[in-house]
Amino acid sequence: MSFQNPVFIPGPTNIPEAIRKACDMPTLDHRSPAFARMFRPAVEGVRRVLKMEGGEVIILPSTGTGGWEAAVSNTLSAGDTVLAARFGMFSHRWIDLCQRHGLNVQIIETPWGEGAPLDRIEAALRADTAGKIRAVLATHNETATGVRSDIAGIRRAMDAAGHGAMLFVDGVSSIGSMPFEMAAWGVDIAVAGSQKGFMLPAGLAILGVSDKALAAMEGATLPRTFFDFRDMLKSYAGGGYPYTPAVGLIAGLAKSVEMLEDEGLENVYARHARLAGGVRAAVTAWGMRPYAAHESLYSETVTAVKVPDGCNGTDLVKLAADKYGVAFGVGLGEVAGKVFRIGHLGMLTDVMVLAGLATAEMCMADLGWKVALGSGVAAAQQHFRGTAGALALAAE
Amino acid sequence: MSFQNPVFIPGPTNIPEAIRKACDMPTLDHRSPAFARMFRPAVEGVRRVLKMEGGEVIILPSTGTGGWEAAVSNTLSAGDTVLAARFGMFSHRWIDLCQRHGLNVQIIETPWGEGAPLDRIEAALRADTAGKIRAVLATHNETATGVRSDIAGIRRAMDAAGHGAMLFVDGVSSIGSMPFEMAAWGVDIAVAGSQKGFMLPAGLAILGVSDKALAAMEGATLPRTFFDFRDMLKSYAGGGYPYTPAVGLIAGLAKSVEMLEDEGLENVYARHARLAGGVRAAVTAWGMRPYAAHESLYSETVTAVKVPDGCNGTDLVKLAADKYGVAFGVGLGEVAGKVFRIGHLGMLTDVMVLAGLATAEMCMADLGWKVALGSGVAAAQQHFRGTAGALALAAE
Amino acid sequence: MSFQNPVFIPGPTNIPEAIRKACDMPTLDHRSPAFARMFRPAVEGVRRVLKMEGGEVIILPSTGTGGWEAAVSNTLSAGDTVLAARFGMFSHRWIDLCQRHGLNVQIIETPWGEGAPLDRIEAALRADTAGKIRAVLATHNETATGVRSDIAGIRRAMDAAGHGAMLFVDGVSSIGSMPFEMAAWGVDIAVAGSQKGFMLPAGLAILGVSDKALAAMEGATLPRTFFDFRDMLKSYAGGGYPYTPAVGLIAGLAKSVEMLEDEGLENVYARHARLAGGVRAAVTAWGMRPYAAHESLYSETVTAVKVPDGCNGTDLVKLAADKYGVAFGVGLGEVAGKVFRIGHLGMLTDVMVLAGLATAEMCMADLGWKVALGSGVAAAQQHFRGTAGALALAAE
Amino acid sequence: MSFQNPVFIPGPTNIPEAIRKACDMPTLDHRSPAFARMFRPAVEGVRRVLKMEGGEVIILPSTGTGGWEAAVSNTLSAGDTVLAARFGMFSHRWIDLCQRHGLNVQIIETPWGEGAPLDRIEAALRADTAGKIRAVLATHNETATGVRSDIAGIRRAMDAAGHGAMLFVDGVSSIGSMPFEMAAWGVDIAVAGSQKGFMLPAGLAILGVSDKALAAMEGATLPRTFFDFRDMLKSYAGGGYPYTPAVGLIAGLAKSVEMLEDEGLENVYARHARLAGGVRAAVTAWGMRPYAAHESLYSETVTAVKVPDGCNGTDLVKLAADKYGVAFGVGLGEVAGKVFRIGHLGMLTDVMVLAGLATAEMCMADLGWKVALGSGVAAAQQHFRGTAGALALAAE
Repeated sequence: MSFQNPVFIPGPTNIPEAIRKACDMPTLDHRSPAFARMFRPAVEGVRRVLKMEGGEVIILPSTGTGGWEAAVSNTLSAGDTVLAARFGMFSHRWIDLCQRHGLNVQIIETPWGEGAPLDRIEAALRADTAGKIRAVLATHNETATGVRSDIAGIRRAMDAAGHGAMLFVDGVSSIGSMPFEMAAWGVDIAVAGSQKGFMLPAGLAILGVSDKALAAMEGATLPRTFFDFRDMLKSYAGGGYPYTPAVGLIAGLAKSVEMLEDEGLENVYARHARLAGGVRAAVTAWGMRPYAAHESLYSETVTAVKVPDGCNGTDLVKLAADKYGVAFGVGLGEVAGKVFRIGHLGMLTDVMVLAGLATAEMCMADLGWKVALGSGVAAAQQHFRGTAGALALAAE
Repeated sequence: MSFQNPVFIPGPTNIPEAIRKACDMPTLDHRSPAFARMFRPAVEGVRRVLKMEGGEVIILPSTGTGGWEAAVSNTLSAGDTVLAARFGMFSHRWIDLCQRHGLNVQIIETPWGEGAPLDRIEAALRADTAGKIRAVLATHNETATGVRSDIAGIRRAMDAAGHGAMLFVDGVSSIGSMPFEMAAWGVDIAVAGSQKGFMLPAGLAILGVSDKALAAMEGATLPRTFFDFRDMLKSYAGGGYPYTPAVGLIAGLAKSVEMLEDEGLENVYARHARLAGGVRAAVTAWGMRPYAAHESLYSETVTAVKVPDGCNGTDLVKLAADKYGVAFGVGLGEVAGKVFRIGHLGMLTDVMVLAGLATAEMCMADLGWKVALGSGVAAAQQHFRGTAGALALAAE
Repeated sequence: MSFQNPVFIPGPTNIPEAIRKACDMPTLDHRSPAFARMFRPAVEGVRRVLKMEGGEVIILPSTGTGGWEAAVSNTLSAGDTVLAARFGMFSHRWIDLCQRHGLNVQIIETPWGEGAPLDRIEAALRADTAGKIRAVLATHNETATGVRSDIAGIRRAMDAAGHGAMLFVDGVSSIGSMPFEMAAWGVDIAVAGSQKGFMLPAGLAILGVSDKALAAMEGATLPRTFFDFRDMLKSYAGGGYPYTPAVGLIAGLAKSVEMLEDEGLENVYARHARLAGGVRAAVTAWGMRPYAAHESLYSETVTAVKVPDGCNGTDLVKLAADKYGVAFGVGLGEVAGKVFRIGHLGMLTDVMVLAGLATAEMCMADLGWKVALGSGVAAAQQHFRGTAGALALAAE
Repeated sequence: MSFQNPVFIPGPTNIPEAIRKACDMPTLDHRSPAFARMFRPAVEGVRRVLKMEGGEVIILPSTGTGGWEAAVSNTLSAGDTVLAARFGMFSHRWIDLCQRHGLNVQIIETPWGEGAPLDRIEAALRADTAGKIRAVLATHNETATGVRSDIAGIRRAMDAAGHGAMLFVDGVSSIGSMPFEMAAWGVDIAVAGSQKGFMLPAGLAILGVSDKALAAMEGATLPRTFFDFRDMLKSYAGGGYPYTPAVGLIAGLAKSVEMLEDEGLENVYARHARLAGGVRAAVTAWGMRPYAAHESLYSETVTAVKVPDGCNGTDLVKLAADKYGVAFGVGLGEVAGKVFRIGHLGMLTDVMVLAGLATAEMCMADLGWKVALGSGVAAAQQHFRGTAGALALAAE
């Protein structure tokens, strides 16, 4: 089962050779010091990628969804109130999860394509004079619409409102690819997954947890065992794990951090911005536009391309897979059919992006959409030509 | 990080080449039909390994602990009563998990080294005239003590008591290595993990769920999202997954089932019995005995070797790792120091077992224990010589 | 060392996952029956790919150059005469090898860009009334110029001249990618390498040897041991090898043949022709042309693109590697600088080809060559859209 | 094709994970600077392993046999005289190769089990007053009999005789495992292979060539192209290769040298001596002895175990493979049946050796040989217990 064409889904990403090899290892006794020697660098590396100060890193053999559940179940109790804006499938799912766990979610309904509305968040917090809101949930990068929210702005809104709620951020499709500043932004829990910016296979939920969130653990009564931070931290202290860890993925995570830092986090972010710029140049050349409502909201990791009226984005995704063996993302939920999504995160080069754009163009032509073959490619080529720099990641 | 010596921990096991290669794959779009084509054989294969009739297979990107949590949280509600015997670390942990989730666990305390006490279980069920007990929890193979419980016997006890509770079985360290008959034994939820009999890396909880347990989902009010069977089954129906699956492990699981069935499940069980027999012959030759209280309780996947008075099993495990690069299992909980454990499950040959036994002997001698070098090896050699058959798994 | 961009050198090719995994294996005793069980299918598979009747397949742990040397040293003696046309670097090198081994090479000097001149070959054979010419050497696909010669035509010329020389064919960069008919064309020795159409790493010379060539072994006095067919065939008969074989590559070769046959040889050839067509469409759109003198000579595996006057093909190759991390082939020998070469053989999809073409365009623009960005891509897209079929190789 | 049991053939050896991963790489353009960056460390590393001063390292995509042929064909001419002792299958084969290449081999017939006879070599050289002997050929470690010859002693003999012949050494099964001093011993060509001490798959001939041997190239008239040092050295100077190199194996070679040097060459030699000591302790305990005539001749990489009268070593090898899935080496040539061979070189630990010894014992008992099960194992255990040190190689 080995498609040789790169994938352009918004995660899991293409996996670098070096990471595949780090993950693929013979069995190592997870109760041995050898495991601790592998685990510690992974944990410390994540701390640096998240730009944490204090707090703890928690690594669970799970996924982003599990990361959300861990964040909520370790710090909150049934009946607690949380504040969240809903503007896409992934912000929706987190809200749904909270509701299933008996939380009272104060939802700020926001049009898809918009980001987290700072003013309405601030207003909601100001209105909460009783201080019932325990946490603000923010989706940093809404993968469904390709929208980036302003987490620093949310922190400013919270501070402006003088509200003491915790700030939980879904950074699954941003962390490791777009700037993230856990300490500077006052994030209390950041949730990442292995399969996006960290370029690993799926299978790890990676969390940064602030000291404030750790303190909240004690009073939290939502049931949890598999996700229990307390067991984790107790075991970590002895170099171990409360149950069998995903050793290979942890080895891969250590390698991932090493690769990100060898390239330089700023260079990694710049590379993603450059690739995103090429994709958006192509989209413009096609006479289309990203679904994100404003330029300031454009995600650097995924572009949801709004398709022309009368066209169906899902048709393109299906055709690309069937005819050309290339994977894009379909529109989800209320943008089903209205967009197709191009993931441009993780292990990716300009050259690979051009292959994806060329494929999309072929599909458009095949489907009878109005497009000049090569037009988007040319716009992206022009963008890439002018911005080419080191090929840090291409050559590992 | 690649120890070349085999491991003798009671899981994760040594991983066959073919499974490592199946797991190590480039990114595949998990929303594509290609994923469905890979997932379906894995699910169907698990069904055959578990010997299910009806019901559903659930595969979670998690571990055995997550499997337990999924079993409980999908079928029960806070305040529900479950019945469980405690006779080792893993039966204890499952009980602890239930308690953390607000269940009322009726515990049958049983000496470590014993298995599930059929008579006391039957008595407890008979005494439950109000029918409060919703589920009986049974640990098929208690990895801490190397004890196998009689699941068919528990079913008989339940039937004899005329009790309608569900039967949940922890088969993490038995399934795929020792006979397991989900339908015939009337098991309602069977929990397995990827890293034992399936010979994969850790990272999957694998559950068989009976129709009766599925029906219990509707009334269950314990919160769950990541583990929610309903989301899983809804997505499975469309060939998909409710969130990002661990694609490589699923590919590996399909391969694992293929390998188990190529060897033949009966042959797999016979191979494990043969290897266990060799280990026990060595233990006897050393003048020691398995911790399991009776011969009928001997596990075919792990032997907890009771060490002589004045000896400390943990010293042996530490020395084996430090001096010879070989991993055994330490005693856990109340048998800490009193035993060391030899895992003999999964990808393993007689020749590999001999290497482990020879290493244990060297450590005993190094530690000043009374042992004749080669004595256990000779007993195992004699056992293996007389029982050697096809080398189905050795040659993939 | 893991460039993620595909390579566009005319071999070694991009390697399919399944072949990498077949090659990467633990040590297997090459004197065991297990080796024979692996070796036999590889040998038989090569026989089918070459379309042999009778004769023997010889597989040497060597390269194409070693294959040439084996062909010559096993069948000829110092002072023997052979006939060869020289029209590129690889036909030149074979001639040079013959001369170093003391053969008298009757050279038909032919302009680079042309193929083997059937009329002059026939004339030379007719003129050899003494029958001194022992073998005709033909380069099926001249990798330096992207020129395919007509081997069937050479056979017709030989037959027309009524000459009994052997026919030796360098099929290193054609076999497995372009139609090859050893028996039908009366080829006496065909030389292939592992790293082209077979999509393996370099390290095997693969030869088909006719019964006539085998008979010539007896009188041949050129010294050889490593390459000696006699030792090979004697060992093969016992399922073995005269020295240590490259076991992993042989396992990979068996897999390669399996993949070629699963796709279907005719489909493999059609895929190569389709990809070549896309490349040539792009070249035309760029206002350039292949170096091959006539359309009938166009290679399906490599296109040597004649660059405009004042441009230097080597500059493009260097820039593509340095700025974009993409490998093309430089011009060799007398076409150095005059061409750059795009390999389009082995593991390759239309989507990958588009990435290569887009990269070449960026380089042209960067170098100030006159080219419209996207123009070649568009032409290739158009070609690929209209010719897309099964994605047999893309999905393994 | 994945036997999980270690192999005990005298090469190819068990391959470390890290080397398998280094070899298994995507295609890299071998004409790129990236190749040069990989090749250079491999070449320089080999120079250090061989303890060279001056001269050149030549790496051929071939095997040890090809290495011999390269040594001979690059430095000698038909009719030249060389001096060689014959005392095993591999010394015999080299002699045979020379004869096939038209050399006049002055053979010192020596009983198998003996090493190179220093006195007779010196006498032969003294007798060669005309200085016709161009080279002395010496097999450092005769793999067929497990005999190590004294290369330093041969150098002393040559110096004592005041003879100016070159000294060519077959170090295929010694280099990288046993002390080797190219400069100090005045070796002119040393031949190694990838699949022994370097722990790689077969596929590389690795040669150290002294300045004196390089000078001999000019007058040498034996034909060669594939093996021609001149082409190699010319290409090396530009960071390249005269034809397609085995890139993955070269990457693996660089890794191998890194591993050998991380462990420390002296430690590597000590590890081999320790493992050999354990094997010989077992052999003695079995009441048998190595075939090597004197203790001073014992090889540290392979032990040819002389089997008792009436026993057939080949039976044991066959049974071990068929019944237990373990590979030993059969006796070759005139010791066929009289010995079985245990390889103990390359990637190997004491624990793995014990598995091999235990297997051999089972086979002996199965075949009705007189042996106490566990007896050899116990002797080896005792040896290993007392000599255990760092586990440098075990833990990569």
